[in-house]
Amino acid sequence: MKMYGNWRSAASFRVRAALNLKGIPYEEVFLDIDAGEHTQPDFLAINPQGAVPALFVDDGPPLTQSLAILDYLEETHPEVPLLPADPRPRARARSLAQLIACDTHPLYTPRVRKQLMKAYDLSKERAMEFLHFAFTNGLKTLETRLASEPGSGRFMQGDAVSHADLCLVSLWAGTGIFGVDTSPYPTVKRIAEACLALDAVARAHPLKQPGAPAA
Amino acid sequence: MKMYGNWRSAASFRVRAALNLKGIPYEEVFLDIDAGEHTQPDFLAINPQGAVPALFVDDGPPLTQSLAILDYLEETHPEVPLLPADPRPRARARSLAQLIACDTHPLYTPRVRKQLMKAYDLSKERAMEFLHFAFTNGLKTLETRLASEPGSGRFMQGDAVSHADLCLVSLWAGTGIFGVDTSPYPTVKRIAEACLALDAVARAHPLKQPGAPAA
Repeated sequence: MKMYGNWRSAASFRVRAALNLKGIPYEEVFLDIDAGEHTQPDFLAINPQGAVPALFVDDGPPLTQSLAILDYLEETHPEVPLLPADPRPRARARSLAQLIACDTHPLYTPRVRKQLMKAYDLSKERAMEFLHFAFTNGLKTLETRLASEPGSGRFMQGDAVSHADLCLVSLWAGTGIFGVDTSPYPTVKRIAEACLALDAVARAHPLKQPGAPAA
Repeated sequence: MKMYGNWRSAASFRVRAALNLKGIPYEEVFLDIDAGEHTQPDFLAINPQGAVPALFVDDGPPLTQSLAILDYLEETHPEVPLLPADPRPRARARSLAQLIACDTHPLYTPRVRKQLMKAYDLSKERAMEFLHFAFTNGLKTLETRLASEPGSGRFMQGDAVSHADLCLVSLWAGTGIFGVDTSPYPTVKRIAEACLALDAVARAHPLKQPGAPAA
């Protein structure tokens, strides 16, 4: 498989980790988002949204949207499952994944900060306040849910890694990159660290990819 | 089943439409979001995120996050399918659903507008500009994809209603409620109207629910 991604992209991290966990070989083409490569006609012909990841799985057009890709990999490569088998815990794993992938991550993307700076004449620093709002809101709800819901285990849903954890580590990596205070979220931290301790996930970490700043 | 929802909530509309299409009986408790009922302890005990929908399917805690609920309903009530059977078109339907549910809808929620007004001292009118940015970006990408990708049919993916269409009508209803210009998006319009012509979807429309303003 061939994937268009970017070192910092949270969504690319999720897919990279799933491919590694399932043992699916792939090559990744790194788009320079800061240089605007994702807005060029060449890439818009691949994904009109101008977003990564875009994953080629056959001769057809690429798959897009990280959670859709994770579900596709689950359906076509079920040997290493990344969702619980039963509908109830499966729905909880998906709810936790979407709390991050729908309600948290889209609010801190570069396109949102750029729009805020442009529309409201904000400095980069002032626009970053919105990023911190997004992270803090998401982390606070996650901590409450993970610490109080009986479904939590070694990982977010029970004792096996799921899509929820792949979303969590993508958020957690962002807290490091953007300097978000994580001290109020001990349960989130425990689970993120358990997931990042897995070699397949560690190898997919943003800071281990080409283009990333030296640690 | 018992669902906590709100007439204007795009995510509640998606779930309501799926329940109707699958013929699953339910009752809905309408939370007054404008009055802040979703932020009260009673509701936070139901969903710590303070968001609707929250769907009780048994004696356990409720299911949350609309796409997770749609997948749960698909797995437990497969008789009226709302996703294609094959992984490839299934992934496309999910990608289109997530383009709306992850990358568009979360940017125009009341909590985002409230935060923008508070953090950047904006009037309600100025904060609404961000809502229009979110709608316009999402609709533009959707129009390009739907008009150019061979998977499009009577509905977003082929000729059967899927999760993608339920997300689309939830976005489309928002264009009416918030006065978004839809003239540049004829393919989006054609499919949204085809979906809204289904009785099960029409009955779920925001403006047909208790609490909605008279048309």
